[in-house]
Amino acid sequence: MQALRQGIMENTQIGLLGFGTVGQGVLDVVNRREGLHVAKALVRHPENYQGKYAVPFTSNPDDILSDPDIDVIVEVMGGLHPAYDLIVAALGQRKSVVTANKAVVARYGPELMSRAREARQNFLFEASVGGGIPVLDALSQHLSTVPIHVVEGVVNGTTNFILDQMDQGMSYHHALERAQALGFAEQDPSADVDGWDSARKLTILAGLAFHAWVDAEEGFVEGIRQIDAEHLTRLRQMGFGMRLVARAERHPGSIGFVVAPTVYPQDHRYLQLHGSQNAIGFLSEAGWTWIEGPGAGGIATATSIVADIQRIRMSVPDRNPLFFSPSYAENVDDAYFIFMDNPDKPLPHIADALRSGPGFIVAPHKLPEDPSIIQYRYRAK
Amino acid sequence: MQALRQGIMENTQIGLLGFGTVGQGVLDVVNRREGLHVAKALVRHPENYQGKYAVPFTSNPDDILSDPDIDVIVEVMGGLHPAYDLIVAALGQRKSVVTANKAVVARYGPELMSRAREARQNFLFEASVGGGIPVLDALSQHLSTVPIHVVEGVVNGTTNFILDQMDQGMSYHHALERAQALGFAEQDPSADVDGWDSARKLTILAGLAFHAWVDAEEGFVEGIRQIDAEHLTRLRQMGFGMRLVARAERHPGSIGFVVAPTVYPQDHRYLQLHGSQNAIGFLSEAGWTWIEGPGAGGIATATSIVADIQRIRMSVPDRNPLFFSPSYAENVDDAYFIFMDNPDKPLPHIADALRSGPGFIVAPHKLPEDPSIIQYRYRAK
Repeated sequence: MQALRQGIMENTQIGLLGFGTVGQGVLDVVNRREGLHVAKALVRHPENYQGKYAVPFTSNPDDILSDPDIDVIVEVMGGLHPAYDLIVAALGQRKSVVTANKAVVARYGPELMSRAREARQNFLFEASVGGGIPVLDALSQHLSTVPIHVVEGVVNGTTNFILDQMDQGMSYHHALERAQALGFAEQDPSADVDGWDSARKLTILAGLAFHAWVDAEEGFVEGIRQIDAEHLTRLRQMGFGMRLVARAERHPGSIGFVVAPTVYPQDHRYLQLHGSQNAIGFLSEAGWTWIEGPGAGGIATATSIVADIQRIRMSVPDRNPLFFSPSYAENVDDAYFIFMDNPDKPLPHIADALRSGPGFIVAPHKLPEDPSIIQYRYRAK
Repeated sequence: MQALRQGIMENTQIGLLGFGTVGQGVLDVVNRREGLHVAKALVRHPENYQGKYAVPFTSNPDDILSDPDIDVIVEVMGGLHPAYDLIVAALGQRKSVVTANKAVVARYGPELMSRAREARQNFLFEASVGGGIPVLDALSQHLSTVPIHVVEGVVNGTTNFILDQMDQGMSYHHALERAQALGFAEQDPSADVDGWDSARKLTILAGLAFHAWVDAEEGFVEGIRQIDAEHLTRLRQMGFGMRLVARAERHPGSIGFVVAPTVYPQDHRYLQLHGSQNAIGFLSEAGWTWIEGPGAGGIATATSIVADIQRIRMSVPDRNPLFFSPSYAENVDDAYFIFMDNPDKPLPHIADALRSGPGFIVAPHKLPEDPSIIQYRYRAK
């Protein structure tokens, strides 16, 4: 038996924007590693943190963005603004940026990647989808070789939790209150329960898989707000269960983009996921590849962020590791949205569908050879 | 909606050693990509191939290894020799090497990685475990951040096929013959059915996860040769099924290394895998991460090989992308081998165990908090 040892790389200095659960997870993981160092952290009230951590805090972003010793900016503050503006400023200062911010990436991803290329820096966001799961990396490995036809997954832990509570007979409102009390749901839960969190992640997944950025608000997005315990109970009696599923499909000249509560047999992989567990699959000529793991949590999310930092340390600066598949880019100038349904009926909301029985909802992975048989094409807006 | 386009990279010239199913898959995938080109291929009898493919063939390795225009050598001939010797020669010529050869990597991995570092070239082997699944990449992303405690998986498709046939009542010998007739098993099936194929892959997984290379022949390796239809039938009646599972655990100063047929409830993820499907999981502080997909097949395996080539094109030459986790290397100078069992009994072979009923075999993922309760430590040889 042989033990392998590596040489030590030079130090990388990190500037943290934000110091919540994920930011503290990043500090924790970085502190256990050689070669990485958190130089400064941006918080609103430095006086609340100073002295409690071995990191200088500041409330002035310029202290970090203008520091010539800082190599990589890690944005973990969340929200669109000022996060977007600080990322733009950091790339303008020729610093690479790593973010966990799905809202910013879903909205401004192509622009920020383009700014990063111009600055010959990296803009990486593995943590923005699937928390600690290396899903964007797995996707990009695949993308470097053969085209991806479908990407789908369960990418929201809050709805897993609420659906599981309802499956045990708790009402939607009770289940939501419980999720909020335990910190699994925000006080304003709409991003999770109305499907927008899943939709943003699907924009990012589809954007990487198909090289086309779909505005989540143009897609078909349905959450779980209209589902209640009675639906889940009825489904369970029939041997089914429900998860909020996000799925994008590539078609000639169009991309199907759907987030919807979807019904599966109880032994389906999605129904083995509980709480923050996520699963994401993609279909290519090589078959389905699935990746599952912790979709949230400070340490889990920090593993993806620190892995991105490692990629930056190892990559040639002007070649963005997430985008190296030029040959499958195509011009997608129009988007259709596809939902599995009876072609004779208008697209129903799922809660209505449930009232007429779950049997007609076709699980996406059971799509027959000729999809036109059961697909209903829905032209957006 | 925006379409993203990338610039085109310069051409990478590839020399193929071997032109079987995987080699042809590599040519197929490379031919569909810009920036990659198969310059020459080594085969035993060039006259059988010349003119059928748009590639010059040769039976002389030096024609490829000494060609200054070739940047990357892809070894897909299989077997220990001359594959190992040609890889050594390629690294000596300062060419990066990508291989799918688990036998060579399991036996000579550390030496070849060391030679690659000296030559400031890459030696990558994503395709050697899990075929088309980006599992080594996922492992290395994780490794760059937090230590991994356990790695396990179903990594052999031939035994999936034979166990499924036996589960339907076919005898072991019939099932094996059928697998051979369909090309799922070799004429000499021992590498698959006796567990050595799985063991070699486990050596590679454990080597990356724990930075210590376990000689598979020192581990506890048990195949499926002594299992028969009656065992599978009895298990199924009790709601269980069987898969050949490879599992390595990190303990202070030791590594547990086991390949064994293992019993699971029918709804376990392993029992949803059929034919060439593989699943590999790893446990760290961030929880379990699982990755599943096609573990064999020409195009699937080629996706991993071409992804490795892409990594080489993008990496800084003297930093091996698979090994960037210096802080968790430790000196492992002794190996214990751990198997879940009753601590009062000597380690039984599984076929004997089955005769006394499957209930006592503890599925590895259900390990209790205090493993000493159920673990039996077995000192190898």
